[in-house]
Amino acid sequence: MNTLNPKRTVAELKELRALTGDDDGAQRVAFTPTWVKARDWFQKKLEVLPVEIHRDAAGNLWTTLRGESEKCLLIGGHIDSVPNGGWLDGCLNVVAGIEILRRINAQYNGKPPVTVRLVDWADEEGARFGKSLFGSSACSGNLDMNEARGLVDKQGIKLPDALKNVGIDFERVKDSGQELKNAAAYIELHIEQGPVLLDLDLPLGAVLGTFGVERHAITFHGQAAHSGSTPMNRRKDAFLAAAKMSSEIYEIAKRSGNGVCTIGSCTTKPGIVTSVVEECRITLDQRHLDTATLARMLAEAKKASERFAKEGNVRVAWERIWQIAPRPFNNDLIALCDEAIGETCGKRHRLPSGPLHDAAEVAAAGIPTVMMFVQSLHGISHNKIEDTKEEHLELCVTAFDKLAEKAMGWIQRKS
Amino acid sequence: MNTLNPKRTVAELKELRALTGDDDGAQRVAFTPTWVKARDWFQKKLEVLPVEIHRDAAGNLWTTLRGESEKCLLIGGHIDSVPNGGWLDGCLNVVAGIEILRRINAQYNGKPPVTVRLVDWADEEGARFGKSLFGSSACSGNLDMNEARGLVDKQGIKLPDALKNVGIDFERVKDSGQELKNAAAYIELHIEQGPVLLDLDLPLGAVLGTFGVERHAITFHGQAAHSGSTPMNRRKDAFLAAAKMSSEIYEIAKRSGNGVCTIGSCTTKPGIVTSVVEECRITLDQRHLDTATLARMLAEAKKASERFAKEGNVRVAWERIWQIAPRPFNNDLIALCDEAIGETCGKRHRLPSGPLHDAAEVAAAGIPTVMMFVQSLHGISHNKIEDTKEEHLELCVTAFDKLAEKAMGWIQRKS
Repeated sequence: MNTLNPKRTVAELKELRALTGDDDGAQRVAFTPTWVKARDWFQKKLEVLPVEIHRDAAGNLWTTLRGESEKCLLIGGHIDSVPNGGWLDGCLNVVAGIEILRRINAQYNGKPPVTVRLVDWADEEGARFGKSLFGSSACSGNLDMNEARGLVDKQGIKLPDALKNVGIDFERVKDSGQELKNAAAYIELHIEQGPVLLDLDLPLGAVLGTFGVERHAITFHGQAAHSGSTPMNRRKDAFLAAAKMSSEIYEIAKRSGNGVCTIGSCTTKPGIVTSVVEECRITLDQRHLDTATLARMLAEAKKASERFAKEGNVRVAWERIWQIAPRPFNNDLIALCDEAIGETCGKRHRLPSGPLHDAAEVAAAGIPTVMMFVQSLHGISHNKIEDTKEEHLELCVTAFDKLAEKAMGWIQRKS
Repeated sequence: MNTLNPKRTVAELKELRALTGDDDGAQRVAFTPTWVKARDWFQKKLEVLPVEIHRDAAGNLWTTLRGESEKCLLIGGHIDSVPNGGWLDGCLNVVAGIEILRRINAQYNGKPPVTVRLVDWADEEGARFGKSLFGSSACSGNLDMNEARGLVDKQGIKLPDALKNVGIDFERVKDSGQELKNAAAYIELHIEQGPVLLDLDLPLGAVLGTFGVERHAITFHGQAAHSGSTPMNRRKDAFLAAAKMSSEIYEIAKRSGNGVCTIGSCTTKPGIVTSVVEECRITLDQRHLDTATLARMLAEAKKASERFAKEGNVRVAWERIWQIAPRPFNNDLIALCDEAIGETCGKRHRLPSGPLHDAAEVAAAGIPTVMMFVQSLHGISHNKIEDTKEEHLELCVTAFDKLAEKAMGWIQRKS
C-alpha cells in the first residue's frame, strides 16, 4: 500500500523555511544554531518511524530503517544552506527522504527487503570555510586532511576548533567511512542550479554524473607601447591575443558535445588608456563529463592560445589553478532514474551536472550512484530568489520515490 | 656664409646630459632646481649673441634675434623632461636652435630679413601636475584655467602655489599670448617617440600634424551565471562581446589609413573563475589626423559594439573620457620641411604624430606650423634608453637649419 503524500513534503519544506529562513533567504549555515535547529526539526519528523538515528564521526546524520538484507539503499542530501540561500537547495532531498521513508515503512510494515538509510551530509556548502562537500568527502576518504586542517573562517577560527565546538574530533572525521560498508546504491534529489530543464520546459531530469573540471590561469606577455605613436602592425598586444580566446572557447565547447568553458576574469597591465596592453591574464574554467574529452578540450585551448600568441607576436604561459576528475554515475541507476521520470511525467531527459554534489563523493568511493534534478525557476541557485513550481516539487517527490523503489529492486537482483 | 656646426650641437647635448642627468636618465622636470640649472646653461650659450632674452607671463623663455621685418619665425621646443627621461626629448630642439641662431646671426651679420625667435616652452611634459603643454597652451589661449587651478602634485601642492614659488602669477599666465603677435611661422624639431622612421630605415620625416583623439570607456552588461551549470547558448557573456572589439579595432584602424586604435584596459565583474562575466569595461583610444575620418572610426567602433552586444544578448554603454581635435600642420611648411629633408639625406617621408607636442598648441592658435622628426632608436621615449644615432642627430640639425632658412624665405614672400 503506497501512502506517499508529496503535498505533505511541500508543506514540510514551507515549515522548515519558516523556521530557519528570513527575508534574505535560508540561513541554515552548517555548524550554526540555525542549522542545529533545522536538524532537530528534521530528527523529530523521523523519530516517529521505527528507525535508528545517529551522527557519524564527521557530523553526518544517518537515519536507518533496517530491512531483510543488510545491503543498503542510501538516500542522501544536505540540510545546510549558504547564507541568504534558496529555500530548496539541499533540504529538498532530506525532506523528500522523510516522506519516502514513511512510504517504505508503511508499504513493508517496517521491514523493507533491503535496508534504507537517509543521510544528511554535514556542511555540503562549505560557506564558512570555503571548502564544500566536507562531510561526504570525509566519508568517501577524499578529504585532504592537511588542507582542511589549515582552513580558517572570516573570524580567524580554524576548522578543527569549530568542529570541536559541535563535538566533532577533526582528526577522526574519516572514521565516518565505515558508514559506507553495506552501501549498494546511492540516490540524491536536487534542484538543478542551472537553466537546462527550464529551457526545455521539462520538470525532471536524470543526471549522468558531475563534470570534471580543468581550471587554469593563462597569461599573455606582450609589450607596452604608446597608443598614439605605435603603428598597429608594430604592436605586441597581449589583450588582442587573450581576447581571441573568448570566441574560441565557445567553439571548443561546441565540439565537445555538452562541455562548458568559461573565461571568468581578465586583468590587464599596465591597464591604462594610453598604452598597448603588456600583460593580460585570463582564467579559463573547462568542464566535461568525459575524461578524454575534457583532456582534449584543454589541449585545444592550449593549442589555440599558442596560435594566437604567435599571430600577435606575444608569449603565453599556462598555470593550473585546480582540477577534478569527472564523476560519471552508474548506468543501471541512470536508466532506472530515467524510467521513474518517464513514468511520472511522460517526458525524459538526461543531463550532466555542472556543479559538484555530495553524490560525486559517494560515486568516487565506488558506490553506484545517480541523481535526479528538478527544474529551477530562473535557473538560479545560492540566492533567495531560487524557486521551483509546487507542481514540480510534487512530481519530483513522486518520481524520486519510484526511483527509490526501483533501486531497492535492483539491489535485490544484484545480490 | 654658412657656419652651421652640427657636431657642436651633439657636443652641447652631451654637455647638458652630463649637467642635468644621472644613471636613471634626464632629470629636468619643470620648475625644479635641475630645470633651472638647464635653463641657466641654455641662456649662457645664447647671451653671447646679439639677442634679447626674457621670460613671459607663463614662464616660457624667449630669445629674440631682431630682423629687417617684425614678422617672426618661431623655433620652439622644451628643455624640461619627465623624471628618468630620455636625453633628447625636448632639449634636442632648443639646443639645435642655439646653433641655428648662431648660423643666421653669422650669415646676416646680426640682421636677418625676418625676426627669429627661439622659445623654450615651460612644462611641456606635465610630469608633476599631470597636465602637459602648460606653457604653450597658456600662450595659445587653450589652457583650461578652472581645471589647471585645481591641479595638485603628489605632495598636495597646487599648481598656482608651485608657480608662485618660481615667480609666476597663475592668474596672468594667458598674458603670454601677446608673444605670438608677429608670429608668421613656427617650426619644431623632435625625436619621433615611435618606431615608424626606424622601421623604414629613414633618418628624418616631415610631420603632417598631431592626431585628434577620441577616448572612451565601453561597458558591456551581461549576466553572471554559474560556469558549471550554464549551457553555452544560454549565456549573456559580457567578456565575449568586449573581446570581439579587440580584433575589430585593428580592422577599423586599417580602413582609416594611418589611424590607430588601442584597447588599453579591461576589467571584469564579478571577475571570478566560476562565473560568466556580468560586466566588462574596456577603454578605447582612437587617433587620426583627419577630423572626418576620426569621427568615422568612432562611429564604426560604436556600430561594432552594438552588433557584438546584440549577438551576445548583452547591453553596451559608451562614456567619453576625453577628446581633442586633430591639429593638421601648414601645407606650405610641410612641403618646405620635406624639401629640406630631401636635400639633406635624399630620402623623404611624411608621417603624422601620435603624441601631442607644443606645436599642436601653436597650430591651434592659427600660426602656420610644421614639425620635423628624427629617428628614435628602439622607438621608445620617456625612458632613459631613448637614443638617436649621432649621424642622425647631425643630419637633423642640418635639415632643420635648411627648414629655418626656407621658412624665412616663405615669410618674406608672403609679406
